[in-house]
Amino acid sequence: MLIGKAITLVESKNFNDTYLAAELLDACLKSTKAFQSRRIGITGVPGVGKSTFINTLASSYALQNKRTAVLTIDPTSKHSSGSILGDKTRMQDIIADPHIFVRPSPAGDTLGGISATTEQVITIFEAAGYEHIIVETVGVGQSETAVADLTDVFVLLMLPSAGDELQGIKRGIMEMADILFINKSDINEQHAKVAAAHYKNALHLFPPTLSGWMPQVFFGTALQQASISPILSALDKYFDFILATGYLIENRSQQKERQVMKQIEALVRKKYHFEQQDSFQKILKEVQENNMSTLSAALQISNF
Amino acid sequence: MLIGKAITLVESKNFNDTYLAAELLDACLKSTKAFQSRRIGITGVPGVGKSTFINTLASSYALQNKRTAVLTIDPTSKHSSGSILGDKTRMQDIIADPHIFVRPSPAGDTLGGISATTEQVITIFEAAGYEHIIVETVGVGQSETAVADLTDVFVLLMLPSAGDELQGIKRGIMEMADILFINKSDINEQHAKVAAAHYKNALHLFPPTLSGWMPQVFFGTALQQASISPILSALDKYFDFILATGYLIENRSQQKERQVMKQIEALVRKKYHFEQQDSFQKILKEVQENNMSTLSAALQISNF
Repeated sequence: MLIGKAITLVESKNFNDTYLAAELLDACLKSTKAFQSRRIGITGVPGVGKSTFINTLASSYALQNKRTAVLTIDPTSKHSSGSILGDKTRMQDIIADPHIFVRPSPAGDTLGGISATTEQVITIFEAAGYEHIIVETVGVGQSETAVADLTDVFVLLMLPSAGDELQGIKRGIMEMADILFINKSDINEQHAKVAAAHYKNALHLFPPTLSGWMPQVFFGTALQQASISPILSALDKYFDFILATGYLIENRSQQKERQVMKQIEALVRKKYHFEQQDSFQKILKEVQENNMSTLSAALQISNF
Repeated sequence: MLIGKAITLVESKNFNDTYLAAELLDACLKSTKAFQSRRIGITGVPGVGKSTFINTLASSYALQNKRTAVLTIDPTSKHSSGSILGDKTRMQDIIADPHIFVRPSPAGDTLGGISATTEQVITIFEAAGYEHIIVETVGVGQSETAVADLTDVFVLLMLPSAGDELQGIKRGIMEMADILFINKSDINEQHAKVAAAHYKNALHLFPPTLSGWMPQVFFGTALQQASISPILSALDKYFDFILATGYLIENRSQQKERQVMKQIEALVRKKYHFEQQDSFQKILKEVQENNMSTLSAALQISNF
C-alpha cells in the first residue's frame, strides 16, 4: 500500500533515504489542501482508556464518511502486558474500518511514541486525504509537549477518582488541555461529577490558553457513543473558533519553525550514526581516553 | 566562586561562549584523576523522598570527609508547591555543609532536570575534586535513560504501598535499577517487607544487568542514618565490583560516545537559535507557506 511505503521511507534509518523522503514530503505538501485537516492530540495516563476513546471517536467520524488516521503508541513496546490485549480488543472496530488507518509508532528512541518522523507521517496522511489525524501519547510529561507541538487541539483523558487524578498527570499538562474528558464515570458517577466541577474551577484559575479558547470539561464513558457526541461538538466548535481567530494558521506556522529545528537535530543524529568515517572514530578515541571533552569533539565534528 | 562561574559559562545560551567552554572542559579533564569519582543517579516519583534520601546520603559522605556535588532538580520549576517548601527543609543540612555543593538544574528545555550541559557540569565538579556526583531526576521515563547515561549506578526510590508502587514508575525503569530503596517504610513496615520481597523476586526474573551486578533491594526511612548505612555499603560493593570487572571504564567509554552525539545536537540547536541569518529566515518562510517540507528545510540549513 502506498501510504505504508511512504511511511517506511521517512522512517528509514539509512541516511541516503533522506533526500528521497524530502522530495516525497515536498510533493505531499503540493497535493494537500492547506488547513483542511484536524490534528488532534490525545493523552492520559496508562489505563485511562485512550484506545477506547479513540476507537469511538474515529468510528463516529467514519459514520460521517470522514477519514481518520490514528498514530498510536506501539502497544508491544510502551504498554503493560494487560494493555496489549486491551488495545487489540478496544481498537478492533476501527482496525477493520476502511475509513480509518491505524499506525502504531515504531519502537526505539521515541518520546512517549513521538519522534522526529511523526510530523512527516502526518504530512503523508494529509496528502492522502485524511481529514482527522489523531496522535496518541502517554501521560509522562515531555511527550505531551511534543504532541501539542504537532497538533491543533489537545484532549486530556482523566479518571474519575477524586484523589488520584493528579497523581499520574504532570504539572503543566492540565494547562495544555483544550478538552478534558473524565472517562470511566460509570465506576462512580458522583465522583465523576465532583471531579468535573473541580476541574472546571481549576481551569478558570489558569492563565488563558494561547488560542483564547476556554477549555471544556466533560465526563462519561468512552465506550458509549452518547459520551463522545458532546466531544465531537466541542471539537467542531473549537475548530470553528481557531479558524475564525486565525490561531490555527498562526499556531501551525510556529509549530513548523520549531519542527525545522527538530528535523535538523534528527538529521545530525542520523548522519553521524551512519557515517562512521575515520576522522569521527579518531575524535571519539580522544574523547574516550579523556584527552578531549565531548563538547570539543562536537565542535570538531560539526565544523561549527 | 570558581565552580559557579565555570557552570555559568557552559550553561550560557550565547553560541560564542561555546569555544571557551570547550577549552575549559578540556582543561578540566587534564586536571582530573580518571575514575576517582562516583556518579550516582537517583530517581523516583515526586513525593517518594528523593531530597531526604540525598540529604542523608551526602551528609554521610561529608562525615567521611568526602566531597559531594548534588545536581538537583530546580524545585521552583519542576515540583509542586508542596515540594518546594519540602525541599528547602529537607536539604537544609547539606546546603550549609562545606563538603557539599548543591546545584539546581536550570529551568528550560530540560528533560526531568537533565540537559546537554549536565555532563559538562559533572566534568567541572570532578575537576574540582568532588568524589561523589549525585544526579537527581524525576520518575517520568525518558529522563531516567538520560541520567543512566551520565552515571555509574542507578538508585531507584519506591514507596511501600503494595498496589501503587508500579503506577508512577514507567516500565523499564525498574530494570535499570542497581539499588532499589523502599522509602517511608515506617508508614507500614509490613507493606514495606512485602514490597521488598516482591521486588527481589521481580528483579530475579529480569535479564541480568549489563554490569553483571545483581540489583539489591532495601527498605527503610531515608530520614534515618541507620536506613542509609546499608545503601552506603552496597554502593561501596557495587563500585568495587564494576572497577574489578572493568565495567566502570567500559560503560563510561560508551557513555562518552553517546554524549558526543548529544552535544552535537545541542550545538545545532544553540547555533540556529542564535544565528538568525537571512537565508535561514527565507527557508523558514517557504516552510511556513507550505512550499517546503521541514525535512527539506533541515537538509538545506544543515548542508547535509
